Amino acid sequence: MAEIHPVPGGITAPSGFRASGLHCGIKASGKPDLALVVSDVPAQAAGVFTLNLAKAAPLIVCEDHLAATGGRARAIVTNSGCANACTGPQGMADAREMAALTAAAVGCDVPQVLVASTGVIGVNLKMDKLRSGIPRAVATLSPDGGAAARGIMTTDPFPKEYAVEVRTDIGTFRVGGMAKGSGMIEPRMATMLGYLTTDATVDPVMLSRALSDACRFTFNAITVDGEPSTNDCVLALANGASGVEITENLYADLFEAFRTVAHELALGVVRGGEGATKLIAITTTGAATDADAWRAARAIANSPLVKTAVHGGDPNWGRLVAAAGRSGAAFVLDGARVQIGPLVLFENGRPFDELAPQAAEYLTGKDIAIEVNLGTGGSHAATVWTCDLSAEYVKINAEYRT
Amino acid sequence: MAEIHPVPGGITAPSGFRASGLHCGIKASGKPDLALVVSDVPAQAAGVFTLNLAKAAPLIVCEDHLAATGGRARAIVTNSGCANACTGPQGMADAREMAALTAAAVGCDVPQVLVASTGVIGVNLKMDKLRSGIPRAVATLSPDGGAAARGIMTTDPFPKEYAVEVRTDIGTFRVGGMAKGSGMIEPRMATMLGYLTTDATVDPVMLSRALSDACRFTFNAITVDGEPSTNDCVLALANGASGVEITENLYADLFEAFRTVAHELALGVVRGGEGATKLIAITTTGAATDADAWRAARAIANSPLVKTAVHGGDPNWGRLVAAAGRSGAAFVLDGARVQIGPLVLFENGRPFDELAPQAAEYLTGKDIAIEVNLGTGGSHAATVWTCDLSAEYVKINAEYRT
Repeated sequence: MAEIHPVPGGITAPSGFRASGLHCGIKASGKPDLALVVSDVPAQAAGVFTLNLAKAAPLIVCEDHLAATGGRARAIVTNSGCANACTGPQGMADAREMAALTAAAVGCDVPQVLVASTGVIGVNLKMDKLRSGIPRAVATLSPDGGAAARGIMTTDPFPKEYAVEVRTDIGTFRVGGMAKGSGMIEPRMATMLGYLTTDATVDPVMLSRALSDACRFTFNAITVDGEPSTNDCVLALANGASGVEITENLYADLFEAFRTVAHELALGVVRGGEGATKLIAITTTGAATDADAWRAARAIANSPLVKTAVHGGDPNWGRLVAAAGRSGAAFVLDGARVQIGPLVLFENGRPFDELAPQAAEYLTGKDIAIEVNLGTGGSHAATVWTCDLSAEYVKINAEYRT
Repeated sequence: MAEIHPVPGGITAPSGFRASGLHCGIKASGKPDLALVVSDVPAQAAGVFTLNLAKAAPLIVCEDHLAATGGRARAIVTNSGCANACTGPQGMADAREMAALTAAAVGCDVPQVLVASTGVIGVNLKMDKLRSGIPRAVATLSPDGGAAARGIMTTDPFPKEYAVEVRTDIGTFRVGGMAKGSGMIEPRMATMLGYLTTDATVDPVMLSRALSDACRFTFNAITVDGEPSTNDCVLALANGASGVEITENLYADLFEAFRTVAHELALGVVRGGEGATKLIAITTTGAATDADAWRAARAIANSPLVKTAVHGGDPNWGRLVAAAGRSGAAFVLDGARVQIGPLVLFENGRPFDELAPQAAEYLTGKDIAIEVNLGTGGSHAATVWTCDLSAEYVKINAEYRT
């Protein structure tokens, strides 16, 4: 295996990518609401998209463009503040115009532009703002990806970007990425918005495979509120600027680099989940099947009772057992085991409540690890990351549009 | 059909039932924590129990007793404050002792006692309190069911009881009931605790059928937080004191009476949901199958984004569409339709945002009706009742054991 090291930056850490972010006028707050990522040369491109059947217009345009080009792209243009979802024919026309405006300013074919939107559902884009904003975004492209990472944010408390360098026998390449959350998060194929770039050369079929494989254990293994969004998408661009070509024998390195960057971005999405104060890793073990391990881990990770208990620092292992028991996964109470941090609170049908004060102390931390053995004697396991549920989540979502 | 009229009271409104409720010492707060319902003569009995695989000890005892007696019971004894769930062999022994203590005090066989518990999971019962409390509960039995309805409460803000009188050609009988919530509520076969009584004579097989049929549209059609509990159970007793025997041609009347009482109790559970300020009826129409109608209605009713939007008075129909779209039910965006109260906010792929202020005004009410047509052209429909999600829910559950 190659060596993989973190490097500063995000989406523009690999060679041959530039990015920009600015306020064009979609958000009333004056915060950044437009982001652009451009590859100097046409890059191999792949995407994974939401399974929500109310798929937003820009995702449909992305799928059309990837099909038309056979997986090649120069640019990804993104606005925040408006999801352009459930907007009918006008929404489709607007998403296509966003691509055309970007293509004209960048100087490429329209199908080489991928489009994404995030924000309020059911509202039309302010196209006049984008008509002036997109040329400005092209004019301000730079090798610093930070402005783009801020341009895609909605309720995110901080930008999410990460990058690694991969040193192989035949040369060095980089993988960078950025993502945004932070509510309506339970990606089924991808998260709200995630972008990966690499300066390796990767065949589009292999790029899709690496992206899907990496998402499975990262973006697809997180949840904030169990709500797969209408606008979930993760896009990957590979422009070959490093001179390294990924062949089958380097696939494992590419996968590992994608997984590493996507893992950091995905955890960032959870840490920045609406109202979140803690990152919680839910691991299920002893599951009869792989599907059961995931099903139980997701059920626990989305349980409002588990999330509020962790928020309140209450080692209420009974809620963990209850969530596992109703998850649909095979579950054997007498064989089950619950561990909070290093402390086993339930095993062989017996509670160890004398450890509750220590467990409560552990729960005062910011990074919480919980393991539930489903007691079936099976050997399957899964980990899902989630955050706690706070009154702040309710406040953010009760007042989102006001 | 017979005439069905509401009558005062609850579980003891039918003839031949007495009940009591008191504080025996399980709850530190000093609030009532023990409830007893006794039929003067052995009654036909039926129960429906949680599908949660972490089933609590008292439910296992109930199933054993119903099997041993072929569906006959004299009494239901219930404690609140401790769920006696995930308590291993000690929990089973404690549940059996509760039945034995009750049988001794009432003067009946042990298998004629049904046992229920509700409260914190994973804590053993304080049997010394029950050893002195249960004889006191028997000594204070009365024709007033109100104390029992309070004795089964945990975080419920108010007791839930209801009763009806059914006037048929061959005589009059009554059906009464009580229930408690108010968190960990998404019954799969029954709610946290619900009891129905009738003074009709009903064969146990028919009693089970009426109970299951009634639960389907009542207790099984509500949710507070999508968390089926370890202790869910609904029990029914029929003691024949009215002299009316339910034969096949009166089944529809019994079902309708059960449904009426269970509907009122179930809505009470939702109104009294933890932190609830509004009752929300989610109706799905235009579904391709019955299962799809229920699946989409449940997904919307459990969506924290929908529940917080209603809490905040935000007619955010995009979240309704998003929840329907990711529910797993067939969904066609261009055919979908969203109605909040009397106002259509989305139809034929087009939003009607000019109606948003009127919809926001409607959402200031306490009883909210929302309809989502899934747009498939199918004719299936379902209604699920839920409540809004408030910061108070988080507070209650973050501090539940402290």
